[in-house]
Amino acid sequence: MVPPELQPGERVDSLGVCDWRIIQSEAAFRFSIDAVLLAFFATVRPRDRAVDLGSGTGAITMLLLSRGLWSAAGLDSNAELVDMATRSAYWNGLSDRLQFVCGDVKEIRRYFSAGDYAMVTANPPYRLPASGRISPVDAVARARHETTAGLQDFVSAAAFLLQNRGRFAMIHLPERLADICNALRNAGMEPKRLRFVHPFADRPAKMVLVEAAKGVKAGLTVLPPLAIYQAPGKYDPEILSYYSGGK
Amino acid sequence: MVPPELQPGERVDSLGVCDWRIIQSEAAFRFSIDAVLLAFFATVRPRDRAVDLGSGTGAITMLLLSRGLWSAAGLDSNAELVDMATRSAYWNGLSDRLQFVCGDVKEIRRYFSAGDYAMVTANPPYRLPASGRISPVDAVARARHETTAGLQDFVSAAAFLLQNRGRFAMIHLPERLADICNALRNAGMEPKRLRFVHPFADRPAKMVLVEAAKGVKAGLTVLPPLAIYQAPGKYDPEILSYYSGGK
Repeated sequence: MVPPELQPGERVDSLGVCDWRIIQSEAAFRFSIDAVLLAFFATVRPRDRAVDLGSGTGAITMLLLSRGLWSAAGLDSNAELVDMATRSAYWNGLSDRLQFVCGDVKEIRRYFSAGDYAMVTANPPYRLPASGRISPVDAVARARHETTAGLQDFVSAAAFLLQNRGRFAMIHLPERLADICNALRNAGMEPKRLRFVHPFADRPAKMVLVEAAKGVKAGLTVLPPLAIYQAPGKYDPEILSYYSGGK
Repeated sequence: MVPPELQPGERVDSLGVCDWRIIQSEAAFRFSIDAVLLAFFATVRPRDRAVDLGSGTGAITMLLLSRGLWSAAGLDSNAELVDMATRSAYWNGLSDRLQFVCGDVKEIRRYFSAGDYAMVTANPPYRLPASGRISPVDAVARARHETTAGLQDFVSAAAFLLQNRGRFAMIHLPERLADICNALRNAGMEPKRLRFVHPFADRPAKMVLVEAAKGVKAGLTVLPPLAIYQAPGKYDPEILSYYSGGK
């Protein structure tokens, strides 16, 4: 592969799988463990048509490809991130398998057709607009806070995209769990698999992984918890396996 | 204490705390680990006015007293269980601290006044009427299946009883979690503390402990998971501590 042209402030990082690289920005949003957790939690069926909502630099879509998904589309409202993701895909030789669209999840019907997808993923902004410090860096603020689109917007966009029985995998804050259940039901989806992520096994959960399905009966499984660390500085073997490509 | 008069088919078991005894029936419902989990999960403030909905043989109310609660009332639709609970309270010298009422949670306002309680607990029937085998023994059927009152009935009864910011602690099936969140919100309550109970740390959750509050903002904590067994036949130390009075 030809090394990519980098814009000022950009850098190239390892994605941790398939020797793929990802273009990110020092100042703006960079992918975190949340993207990795989500990509390894989602049920992957290779030929499923898939969309990642709020795709950022494209980390989740690339990680899903590393797990066997053939192709994916990403939607993000930040044109610079869409551009970075597109160049990363090109650099990794994935241009025919990844497509990134710049647009607002609230206007999903302008970019994608209804009921055409079997799989949707999202690592949406976690915090309500009023809570926490709003980052002065616009891209970080938009990625973390519901400044432009909120939980219900992401859930509704997923419901729009999904065919009946299609799956929506999301990572979010446990404190929003009741809102998540409510938003899913409002959109005609039901949570089917939940997994809580704890920093240590004896600490409260920091994140929740949710897989919902459209047009199905209520009833869910709460999977064994995932503790990031076994001891300070010592990652759980499952986490380490993600960073070596899930093997 | 004078040993109680027992009815045919009744037996006396240890409650596991304070040397208290509990009258139960071979044929009907007996208290299980679920009652113990709930009683040790609920936030106890000694002087709070408290009601246990579906109080059965009175195990939860007695366990709450062992944790420092001064007094509690129980409501159950099964007159025989109410009678057993009343005799157990008398036998343990708790007649002035425990009161059991026979009645239907759906008609809660006939027995209790609105907004008078700071704490409500419930170990309601878990299964929807259509799911699973219905027990031929009537008391067991009523305790396990939503034959008479369902999740929403218990949640609504709790909301009726509670003062503003009052707490409702319940144990239920994780598969019903979305229904639980929905039912709580319908009744003006929000889940504030969740704890999942797994048979082993690497198995899906079998039960969920929920503490909700009335008239508060959304936002909850998912506590560290509780695994019943550390290894086959080896209880987790926290579980063992419950059976020695939580010490």
